[in-house]
Amino acid sequence: MEAVQHGRRGRRRRAREDSEASASEPRTTLMNCFSPVPFYSDTDIDAIHANALRILQETGIRILHDKARAMLVEHGASVDADDHLVRFPRELVEQAMASAPSEFDAYTTEEHEPVRFGGRSAVFAPVGGAPYASDLEGGKRPGTLEDYTNFVKLVQHFDVLHVQSAMTEPQDVPIRFRHLETMHAQLTLSDKLPWVFCRGHGQVMDGFEMVRIARGLSEEEFREKVYIWGVINTNSPRVLDSLMVQGLIDFAEWGQMMVITPFTLSGAMAPVTIPGALSQQHAEFLAALTIHQLVRPGAPVVYGAFTSNVDMRSGAPAFGTPEYVRAAMGSGQLARKVGVPWRSSGSCTSNCVDAQAAYETQMALWGAMLGGANLLLHAAGWLEGGLTASFEKLIVDVEMLQQMAELFQPQKVTDEDLAFDAIASVEPGGHYFGEDHTLARYDTAFYTPVLSDWSNFGQWSENGEKTATERANEIYRSILDTFEPVALAADRRTALDAFVARRKEEGGAEPDG
Amino acid sequence: MEAVQHGRRGRRRRAREDSEASASEPRTTLMNCFSPVPFYSDTDIDAIHANALRILQETGIRILHDKARAMLVEHGASVDADDHLVRFPRELVEQAMASAPSEFDAYTTEEHEPVRFGGRSAVFAPVGGAPYASDLEGGKRPGTLEDYTNFVKLVQHFDVLHVQSAMTEPQDVPIRFRHLETMHAQLTLSDKLPWVFCRGHGQVMDGFEMVRIARGLSEEEFREKVYIWGVINTNSPRVLDSLMVQGLIDFAEWGQMMVITPFTLSGAMAPVTIPGALSQQHAEFLAALTIHQLVRPGAPVVYGAFTSNVDMRSGAPAFGTPEYVRAAMGSGQLARKVGVPWRSSGSCTSNCVDAQAAYETQMALWGAMLGGANLLLHAAGWLEGGLTASFEKLIVDVEMLQQMAELFQPQKVTDEDLAFDAIASVEPGGHYFGEDHTLARYDTAFYTPVLSDWSNFGQWSENGEKTATERANEIYRSILDTFEPVALAADRRTALDAFVARRKEEGGAEPDG
Repeated sequence: MEAVQHGRRGRRRRAREDSEASASEPRTTLMNCFSPVPFYSDTDIDAIHANALRILQETGIRILHDKARAMLVEHGASVDADDHLVRFPRELVEQAMASAPSEFDAYTTEEHEPVRFGGRSAVFAPVGGAPYASDLEGGKRPGTLEDYTNFVKLVQHFDVLHVQSAMTEPQDVPIRFRHLETMHAQLTLSDKLPWVFCRGHGQVMDGFEMVRIARGLSEEEFREKVYIWGVINTNSPRVLDSLMVQGLIDFAEWGQMMVITPFTLSGAMAPVTIPGALSQQHAEFLAALTIHQLVRPGAPVVYGAFTSNVDMRSGAPAFGTPEYVRAAMGSGQLARKVGVPWRSSGSCTSNCVDAQAAYETQMALWGAMLGGANLLLHAAGWLEGGLTASFEKLIVDVEMLQQMAELFQPQKVTDEDLAFDAIASVEPGGHYFGEDHTLARYDTAFYTPVLSDWSNFGQWSENGEKTATERANEIYRSILDTFEPVALAADRRTALDAFVARRKEEGGAEPDG
Repeated sequence: MEAVQHGRRGRRRRAREDSEASASEPRTTLMNCFSPVPFYSDTDIDAIHANALRILQETGIRILHDKARAMLVEHGASVDADDHLVRFPRELVEQAMASAPSEFDAYTTEEHEPVRFGGRSAVFAPVGGAPYASDLEGGKRPGTLEDYTNFVKLVQHFDVLHVQSAMTEPQDVPIRFRHLETMHAQLTLSDKLPWVFCRGHGQVMDGFEMVRIARGLSEEEFREKVYIWGVINTNSPRVLDSLMVQGLIDFAEWGQMMVITPFTLSGAMAPVTIPGALSQQHAEFLAALTIHQLVRPGAPVVYGAFTSNVDMRSGAPAFGTPEYVRAAMGSGQLARKVGVPWRSSGSCTSNCVDAQAAYETQMALWGAMLGGANLLLHAAGWLEGGLTASFEKLIVDVEMLQQMAELFQPQKVTDEDLAFDAIASVEPGGHYFGEDHTLARYDTAFYTPVLSDWSNFGQWSENGEKTATERANEIYRSILDTFEPVALAADRRTALDAFVARRKEEGGAEPDG
């Protein structure tokens, strides 16, 4: 299947690869050619920032982690002993803002350029943490290790997906072993940046050690650069629980990439107004950032934003809405005010891979890209408000992401592009099919889709009148059928297997902080 | 059905309607809050413009209309008598650019504010001229007058569709009567700006007279303001045929709104490079503009742009591609260089109303909106490269357009929006559902979708696991079931019916220029 091979990592040859603009770019980093579009005025962004600082100073954030609270007090915060509410002095927050890096690189294997986070870079990550998986044949079901493994393969396959993620929960694996199995799959099937859940110190440490084994790194080398990433969510409104704070501390201590994401649903866990929800998001982020930067100033961190709205009639979350786009663009402005990379999300509410799933996801995608997102989590495969990781949806989303990536390529118009001679040589009413100018660009002129069917109605009917979703099913299966894992040195593979076996024997790691 | 009533013209109440920003806006004009995003550098746009002027001067455009050629020669153009190739002096073109208005209003009935074209305004028009119609029950079939009439009703229903268009061809009506029937449907079922095809002087004059009857206008009043709109296409590359030139002349003489749209498919009827295709588009537009402004300097005109690319393997056109977005944004820049409103298009290649149809259409929509389009033709209902007008697609597109319209509403953050007191009053880990701040905004806080289903998977399954396309079918049928035509004064209605009867008796008007 030609369409499938097009997306194959390392075999994909884009039209602009030979131009100066992109040839110098590392393969794993996309640069967004659009300047971030401001949605709110600078005055309004300043007001939201000031509001967040006031929330931190006057109402405080509940921090459910003794060591973190003690550290904050040591640095000038006040704590209410009864309810663990920490009030943050403005200077302490601003100190954290100052020490957090604006850009950094993440490293995978020797063969690949690092992945850049920050500036104009745009990194696409697949759906993370969906409890269910689905495809057309199997329908919706609890995620399994087989599902997770298949997602790892698909993510590895497509160049446009730059890093691995949590995709679906392998619910057939006990939770104390789950991190071992998912990390093993990531490191043996893929050479992209791996991911670990912040489900307690033990699981995070296991994850770090497995990455060190697979990449052949000493503890010291590992501490110096980013080799793995993770996310913590605040428990909105205004709570940071112990698992999340422990994740902050572990990732900061080891210098690994931490995305801090408040989950501020406007109208439910955050105010019903978007500026109010953004204020709370910003305050919760800044609280976590302050802890993070106190542990290790300069540790790599990303401003996670996931403000959306709810259906006011049911309280259910909605994604890819106009308010979502507004909140995303405002979040980008707030992240740039802090001076750290910004993470947004692809998302939708739809329960199946239909037109709604596509238009909601693309609304979210444009909000992120116009806002200048540096990391787009849930960019491929997210369905049903994030409850399901869909194999067909991943292919649909990859098509949208590849189109966006193509659109990002900066254009510089040359005389050859202007084509005066070609225009002069074609008769009025004629066509350009046979022109040298056309033939010389036959293979490279236009983006070639992985999923879109451009055949005419007659051909499409003859081919079975398949929807994009049905074709996506065939494509994902075809990729899995021919997938070849990346080569991992035999000694590292053996060590990795042995580590997993030993840790399982030891009982794994419960997510108990 | 609540969702249906939401979109009902005159009954729709948007969240921001009571705010100062939008209350002062006329109902029929949307203002795009995003500044146009430049895609090409100013230098590159200047180079494309200069290239177009060179094409006009050196290679020329074939003008298949004796009177127009004579007029051009009279004003300094040179003509090759053998092949009717007209070469345009730069000064003549620049004179046309200078006299064309940058903004103008179009008028409908006394009850409604005029529709503004130009500046930040964004006018949405449905699909135009599809030979086929389709819906889930009937499938794809040649368009009929019943289909056309049903589309007129749907367009009238939704506020977000600002003007009428050609929707589908009523192939069951002889072509010499077709303009009479379609105009009659527009004027008796709708009070939105009507549309007529440029299929010869006779049809255009009939259309103009019917509008005068329906709106109660003298010939003199009609000439003073815009009351109807039309489109001409160039026969790319570099030909303007007699019907198209006659349309230019008729619309200019009567001061009605003319959209001049080259149909420059990159790789087929235009160069395979987007800057080359844009150069040809720009040259063809400027040639037609020059004729148009010579007929009546200052006549209202819109820069139509429809550059897309073809599938190089089959030569078939593709829409909503990255190249399409690039061409759209570049076209917006070129239209602003000329200083006239810009028309772009919603479009897709998909053969059915699936995820592909949605993502292609939304790509086109964002290209138009970011580029600052003043008129978006084919914004609702376009399917299968424009060959089919789909009833379900119209509903899907209306949802996307309504979301976009909501996103356009400019936001000014107030202290109330910042919600500090609400944030302070909700306990950490609590929720905002019962807060006064929430309840006061319960009905107006968020956009309410017309099509999107935000119910959870269980509810969605219980409701029959309907896709967006299946729900769109129910919605469009429900609107038609309850549609009430606008009131047209009895004497005007009688005069309109009599005019149609008389013209039919006289044999209608063949499209013979």
